[in-house]
This record gives sequence, C-alpha cells and structure tokens, in this order.
Amino acid sequence: MNLVAVGTVAFDSIETPFAKKDKVIGGAATYITLAASHFVKESGLISVVGDDFPTDFLQGMTDRGIDQKGLQIKQGEKSFFWAGKYHYDLNSRDTLDTQLNVLATFNPIVPDEYKNIDFLMLGNLAPSVQMQVIDQLPNRPKLVVLDTMNFWMDIAWDDLMKVLTKIDVLTINDEEARQLAKEYSLVKAARKILTMGPKYLIIKKGEHGALLFDSHSIFFAPALPLEEVADPTGAGDTFAGGFIGYLAQTQNISFENMKRAVIVGSAMASFTCEKFGPERLLELTREEIMERIEEFVALTEFEEILEV
Amino acid sequence: MNLVAVGTVAFDSIETPFAKKDKVIGGAATYITLAASHFVKESGLISVVGDDFPTDFLQGMTDRGIDQKGLQIKQGEKSFFWAGKYHYDLNSRDTLDTQLNVLATFNPIVPDEYKNIDFLMLGNLAPSVQMQVIDQLPNRPKLVVLDTMNFWMDIAWDDLMKVLTKIDVLTINDEEARQLAKEYSLVKAARKILTMGPKYLIIKKGEHGALLFDSHSIFFAPALPLEEVADPTGAGDTFAGGFIGYLAQTQNISFENMKRAVIVGSAMASFTCEKFGPERLLELTREEIMERIEEFVALTEFEEILEV
Repeated sequence: MNLVAVGTVAFDSIETPFAKKDKVIGGAATYITLAASHFVKESGLISVVGDDFPTDFLQGMTDRGIDQKGLQIKQGEKSFFWAGKYHYDLNSRDTLDTQLNVLATFNPIVPDEYKNIDFLMLGNLAPSVQMQVIDQLPNRPKLVVLDTMNFWMDIAWDDLMKVLTKIDVLTINDEEARQLAKEYSLVKAARKILTMGPKYLIIKKGEHGALLFDSHSIFFAPALPLEEVADPTGAGDTFAGGFIGYLAQTQNISFENMKRAVIVGSAMASFTCEKFGPERLLELTREEIMERIEEFVALTEFEEILEV
Repeated sequence: MNLVAVGTVAFDSIETPFAKKDKVIGGAATYITLAASHFVKESGLISVVGDDFPTDFLQGMTDRGIDQKGLQIKQGEKSFFWAGKYHYDLNSRDTLDTQLNVLATFNPIVPDEYKNIDFLMLGNLAPSVQMQVIDQLPNRPKLVVLDTMNFWMDIAWDDLMKVLTKIDVLTINDEEARQLAKEYSLVKAARKILTMGPKYLIIKKGEHGALLFDSHSIFFAPALPLEEVADPTGAGDTFAGGFIGYLAQTQNISFENMKRAVIVGSAMASFTCEKFGPERLLELTREEIMERIEEFVALTEFEEILEV
C-alpha cells in the first residue's frame, strides 16, 4: 500500500441546466480513489458512510484495488448528502442542501497497514479532521496533498492554517486562492500561499485549466475543450486523484514530474465531466487515458519560434 | 507594403479598480498597427480622426513604419471617444460613454498603394464599413482577419453575415462566439462559426488564454499569469496585430504557423496590459519580445508522458 486517500464517500443530487439526477454516488474520496486506481494497484480509503450506501458500489471499488479497512460503516445512520445546482456556465454552482449525517461525528482512524504510506491525499473535509489523520502517522509521508474550500476559510481559519504547515501540495480553485491570500492577482496570491506551508500550489480554474506553482516557476495546463459537459461534479477530486496517482505510480515528486501529473489529472477530470457521477472512471481503459493525454499534448504543442 | 489595418484611432477614458485615466490614446487600429510594427517594416493605416488627435503621436507611428495615407483627418471635428469601467476581475467591463464623432460618417478610402497587399486586418468597426474596404480591393489578399463584437451581432446581423463570407480568420471573445453560434459549448460554437465563412476562428478568453480552431483541430494558448494588470484595454487588438504581423513577417499562413502567431499575439497582448494605453508597445525591444515568448513556451512545456 503506497497511497491513501481521506475524504467523503457520499450521495449527491445534481441539477445542471440540461438534466437533474437524484442520489448519484459521489464524495471526494470516491472520485480520488477511483481516479488513482488507474495508476496504482492498491490504495487505502479513510472515510465514513451509513448503512444506506450500496455495497455493490463498494465491491466495485474493492475490485479496483481500493482497500476499505479505513472505511467506517455506521449502522442505522445515513451517508453524507450534498445537493447542488450548476449555473448555465457549468463553472459555478450553488449548494441547495447539505446533510452531514455520519460526517457530523466522523473520527478518522488510520489502520496500521496504512501507517507507512508514501502518498497521502487529504480530500476536502474539516481541517481539524485532516489534521487528525496526519497526527496518526508515525512517519511523515513522502508527499501530502491537501484539498480544501472557501467554507473552511470562513469558519475554520486557524485550523486550516495549522494543517497547511504539514502538507506539500495545496489544491484550491482561483476564488479560494484569492480568498486565502487576500490578493487578487493569482501570481501574488500564489507567492503568499507558498509562505503558509505548502511547497507547491495548484490553482484549479475548471474549464479554464489549472496552474501549478512552486516558489520560482509556473506551469499551466489547459482544460480540454469539451463538446458536451454532462456534470462537472467530482472533476476537482478526479484531478487530485489522477495527480497523486500518477506521482505514486512513477515514484517521482520532482517539479518536472508534477507538471506531467497535472496533465494526467486534467485528462482524468475531463472524463468525469462526460457523465453524471463517477461512472466514467469505472469503465475507462488505459488506451482511452493515453489517447486523452495525447489530445492534451496536441492542444498546446507548437513548433519553435526562432526569431521575430 | 504588405499589411494594412483598418479600425479606430481614438481616445479612451479608462477606469480600473486601481486607477482612472482620462483621454488616453486608444483605438483598435492604433494597437493593431503598433503591435504589427514589431514584425513588419511597413504597414498601412485606414482610419479617421478629428483635428484634436495629437500629431506627435501620429509622427511616432510614422517613425515605426506606419504609413498614414489611408488616415483621414477631419478639420473641425472630434476623434472617436470611448469611456469604460473595468470590473474587479479586469476580465469584463461596462461602457460608460461612446461618442462616435468622426466615426459617424466614416467612409474608408483605400489608397492605391494599399490595393495589392497580402495581409488585411479588419479591426472592430461596423461590418458594412469593413465590407467597404474589401470591396475596394481589386484582388483578394492572401489573408483577411476580422475582429468584431456583440454590438454588431445585436444591430447589424445581416451585414456581419455578409462580411464573414469574405474573410479567412475571425477573432471574437468567448461570449461573442456563444452569441454568434447560439451554442453554449465553445467546441460546438466553433464548428458552427466555421460554416459561416471563416476557415479559422480565434476565441479570445482574456486572462484565460485563446483558442485557435480550424475545421479539424484546436490549439490553445494560455495567457501569461501577470503579477499586475494595469489596464487590459487594447489587449485584444494587440493580440490581433501581433498575430497578423507575425504571419506577414514569416509569409506563412499554415495552421502550424498560425499556432506560433497566436503565441506571439498573446505575448504582445501581455505587454499592453502592463500600462495604460499603447505606451508599452512604443518602447518594446526585440529582446523583450523574444524573452516573453520564451516565458510562454516555458509555461506549458512538459516532458513526454510515456505510459500510464
């Protein structure tokens, strides 16, 4: 076991301008582990669900090498539920309902088998819960990636600041980067955020791509222009899963390899947008993934400009 | 003479969240010709100003090889004036005032010396005025690039449809592409627009970069993440000027070379954003331009992903 992901495993009700689906399977850790499962044979899942969560879906995850010793199943309780509605541009959304259910009392427990992993992905959760996971590890993993959101900046600033000092890579969207740094310019925001703890920052801009920063370089990966976007839910988590999955597969955490991991993450995220829920991630083949990566390469490739 | 640009030469009053400047020199053709002047030794300008337009600025354009036989100077009249205010994100703006002045009766006259040019840039103007220029050319130029905006889609749809059948490359922003094609997906919109006349479409997304389409390929160029944006006015016109200037310099209108021209245009546009008005374009050196292009290359370059 080389990679562990922490985060929600949940139900979503999703409304887009074109369709509406109730009780789709979702959750950050669902998307992260399914995306990563295309790059690592085994991974560990730390999460919590109620007894309403379909066991056949969990079996499907097991079949993809996703170990569930860290998944708590609470009898007589209900799984986390989120309902949201996308705006016409599909790049922004409103939350219609959040039912914490099992998440309200979630105490993550790291199984012994997960304690010496190299790659840890902390999906979006309360920063104090993310910290509880870090605190249970006897040795610092080789790479810790953390995803968070504006909600925690609003209500758990101090906890967030603490956990940021314990991680390597932070992934947030552009509005969150601006809020976290209190700077409008993303370049200035990134510089400030990189003094808060993480050595690397990924700013996710949805259909406008993603930026990877370290203290002296910037790398930009576009999003693939898609003909149809069915549902962007989980795209950010899929990106994170593809990113850390590729790093774990290649066992190389250099900035150069992180650039490639950002492209791989973007390619994986583009698949998730094609259907509601994590469905696309279950059926993907290695050939489809390589083909999609080639489309990303072609999208930005140009011949050298020798002189002007 | 190989390149001619048609468009406004004007005054702008510009308000950003950080500063406000009155009566800055502006106009589409000003930015286009100044940007192109870094790539071609000579160009022609077709436009109109009043006698209030500073002659020393026109002399500065002459010094950069911008011929003004096609520039009408109307005694006793005032130059076109636009006032606008940028939103906090600097990627969108409101028009506060438009005074057509000399533009209200503008009849473009193509001097004989311009009649056999290879590269024609039709800056944003009434489609009927753009068409008047095309109608005066005895031979079709090698490449005609046209820029337009939503305003003309609202009030001069039929004229716009006519002129679109006469051009090679259309440049518009993402909202305009959606409006023109009545399609939300930019991929679908592009496909539809490419049936209206142009063989190539460039969708400008401001700080989110630009997309170049032909009927079977897409190329994406990012915008350079800037630490400070002083004023984005003219960035789109500068892009167009850099794009067509590079094509005219290299005398190569293949899709592969257009990709490079999009990068060159994006690099030039990034300079324009650094100061109010076209100031940056007057002082730029060849070394600064090559250095900026290198930054674009570095921004998206990554090593090959061999396998996943």
